[in-house]
Amino acid sequence: MDRALELARRGPAFGPNPRVGCVLLGAPDRGLTGPVDGDLRVLAEGWHEGAGTAHAEAAALASAFGAGVDVRGATAVVTLEPCNHTGRTGPCAQALLDAGIARVVVAVPDPNPQAAGGAEHLRTGGVDVAVGVGQAQGRALLQHWLAAVDRARPFVTLKLAVSIDGRIAAADGSSRWITSEVARQHAHGLRAEVDAIAVGTGTVAADDPSLTARNAAGGLTGHQPLRVVVGHREVPAGARLRGPGGELVHLRTHDVAAVLAALHEREVRHLLVEGGPMLATAFLRGGFVDELYTYVAPVLLGTGLTAVGDLGVGSIGEALRFVPREPVPLGPDVLIVSTPVRASRAPATTTEESR
Amino acid sequence: MDRALELARRGPAFGPNPRVGCVLLGAPDRGLTGPVDGDLRVLAEGWHEGAGTAHAEAAALASAFGAGVDVRGATAVVTLEPCNHTGRTGPCAQALLDAGIARVVVAVPDPNPQAAGGAEHLRTGGVDVAVGVGQAQGRALLQHWLAAVDRARPFVTLKLAVSIDGRIAAADGSSRWITSEVARQHAHGLRAEVDAIAVGTGTVAADDPSLTARNAAGGLTGHQPLRVVVGHREVPAGARLRGPGGELVHLRTHDVAAVLAALHEREVRHLLVEGGPMLATAFLRGGFVDELYTYVAPVLLGTGLTAVGDLGVGSIGEALRFVPREPVPLGPDVLIVSTPVRASRAPATTTEESR
Ligand SMILES: NC(=O)c1ccc[n+]([C@@H]2O[C@H](COP(=O)([O-])OP(=O)(O)OC[C@H]3O[C@@H](n4cnc5c(N)ncnc54)[C@H](OP(=O)(O)O)[C@@H]3O)[C@@H](O)[C@H]2O)c1
Ligand SMILES: NC(=O)c1ccc[n+]([C@@H]2O[C@H](COP(=O)([O-])OP(=O)(O)OC[C@H]3O[C@@H](n4cnc5c(N)ncnc54)[C@H](OP(=O)(O)O)[C@@H]3O)[C@@H](O)[C@H]2O)c1
Repeated sequence: MDRALELARRGPAFGPNPRVGCVLLGAPDRGLTGPVDGDLRVLAEGWHEGAGTAHAEAAALASAFGAGVDVRGATAVVTLEPCNHTGRTGPCAQALLDAGIARVVVAVPDPNPQAAGGAEHLRTGGVDVAVGVGQAQGRALLQHWLAAVDRARPFVTLKLAVSIDGRIAAADGSSRWITSEVARQHAHGLRAEVDAIAVGTGTVAADDPSLTARNAAGGLTGHQPLRVVVGHREVPAGARLRGPGGELVHLRTHDVAAVLAALHEREVRHLLVEGGPMLATAFLRGGFVDELYTYVAPVLLGTGLTAVGDLGVGSIGEALRFVPREPVPLGPDVLIVSTPVRASRAPATTTEESR
Repeated sequence: MDRALELARRGPAFGPNPRVGCVLLGAPDRGLTGPVDGDLRVLAEGWHEGAGTAHAEAAALASAFGAGVDVRGATAVVTLEPCNHTGRTGPCAQALLDAGIARVVVAVPDPNPQAAGGAEHLRTGGVDVAVGVGQAQGRALLQHWLAAVDRARPFVTLKLAVSIDGRIAAADGSSRWITSEVARQHAHGLRAEVDAIAVGTGTVAADDPSLTARNAAGGLTGHQPLRVVVGHREVPAGARLRGPGGELVHLRTHDVAAVLAALHEREVRHLLVEGGPMLATAFLRGGFVDELYTYVAPVLLGTGLTAVGDLGVGSIGEALRFVPREPVPLGPDVLIVSTPVRASRAPATTTEESR
């Protein structure tokens, strides 16, 4: 399973489909029927390279067939339960059955109601199926995707880049730069992993951002996230958002739930909200923030725009509290990644955690 | 010198005097005259235990005399240049001369104009003196004291305990607690190392703080810093500040320079400013903050009191920038210790750094 997870990681973090890896194992003498134990060897490997390409199981089978390897009686180790539905590709459970696979070991059960049932289908076909092997690591790898499927909306990461006193711009509105080059480059790495980036029309008007994922040299990275603008005002004709980069989607609404529904419709699994304060506040008030990336710069501004507006917090007891991971030093700055203590609009979270 | 520094560290971090350690070394056969090399052995040790007690050199000599050890011709290794003036105790340079010490090795030259000249005095008396051995570590140990002597005012540490969005109290004024128990206990450790703690009358009125250094069990630690209240309003009769703890000093002024002069007069070397925002802002605007301790809690408040007020920063270019040390995770919180990029009111800093 460790190897299968390693293969899964080769797939892209973005995209509508989960990252999956698959290893086909057989006894050294091959051609076995029935369960295999002892010292197995790898017959073939596969992983999912993104929407429109073969699923991991299909890729592994294709690799085996291409090399003329007999997989009958073999064991398939897969990081996610093989799908049972015909999407862009055929159902993997049936493909494994057809290939004569005798045993399937799965890390994470498929939470997608449309795709689930693969394990059951395999068992009915006489295959020995074990689910839950290496589940914790499997879940960690798929955390955004699993949460998106659970909530039926994109997983939302809110990014804040603040001074020690919580400001994101100085009194005159200038905000370039509060954080360091190192921190900004890190944020570009985050952009390159998400499906979409959202800002409000206020940020478009003030900063004319390009919202592209760029490498250290300033060039565009291969994958460019969807660029989402929220609000009624028009995006000016000459805006950088209309230049090179991901597709521009303008959602003329203030309703965050509608924004998420529209993006879910477009198969966005991971959305990065980059501000400004009004949009960030709307996401927080709605309980739609699943993860907070705060880049804190050792800078004091005293006055200027604050990172967030009124959250409806009256007293300390009502504060929005987050559980942080280990802080990450980035040049002079510190990145604090944290998740809400309670995801107020995500009833499925508890179920997931208690699984 | 490593051993001498180790001894120095046994002394208290607070108090008007520097922490100093001294090791007396002699050849195995003792009684040598002239410079000694090769395998020396420790004849006696001493360190300064705080104001009113013997200086490190005197303590080491007393220990040698007490044990009947002959120190004539020995080498004294001292972390700070032996003093040359009669304060609460006699001059150490003369005591070393009188004892017949042949060689003195010093880490840090004494920056105090009143006490300096010890090395010169020893050389005139025929002693071989080497200054600057292990100077970096020696300076690190004495950083607050050296800065205080350089600036002729206390070294100022400003403490802020903030939410991610830079708030120190919620909309209703409640501020207990934003940071965790772990972070608050850490802050008590800091209190136990300083000579004085200052707050404005606003904080006294709002929080009725006791400003004592307490241990994890809630008991008062041995050393209690001076409790300084700045501002014109009276400290109420029943205030906790009038209860058990350090001496209460009420300075009826808004002039930060006058506050520092008064505390320097009282031999305060290290002052901790604990707020509130108005007092913190006054210290920052005056360029009197030498070090910033920011405890950042993974909490969002949206509204409420900000950590600092108007600092006169108009644009990002004018921001007050700090150089941080490695962030320190404290339970869920992060401590960022940093020093100003330029200490605007401390011309001596450059000299010190370039030494
Ligand atoms: N340092 C940083 O990390 C950072 C990041 C981003 C922005 N900024 C700064 O933020 C400032 C812009 O602040 P901002 O708050 O105006 O930006 P914003 O949140 O990007 O835009 C606010 C606008 O978005 C629209 N909107 C969309 N959904 C909304 C909702 N649910 N509630 C309210 N309005 C909604 C409204 O415009 P319509 O009238 O068009 O509907 C509103 O005026 C700029 O100075 C920029 O430099 C800093
Ligand atoms: N979370 C935390 O870490 C923390 C820490 C401390 C305080 N707080 C909160 O801070 C709030 C109090 O805020 P604050 O700003 O009023 O507190 P403050 O700075 O302690 O007190 C302000 C008062 O100090 C006097 N003062 C002394 N020197 C001054 C100067 N140079 N400039 C202006 N005033 C000066 C003035 O009072 P006079 O009229 O008497 O001269 C002024 O009204 C409380 O809500 C408290 O809970 C939070």
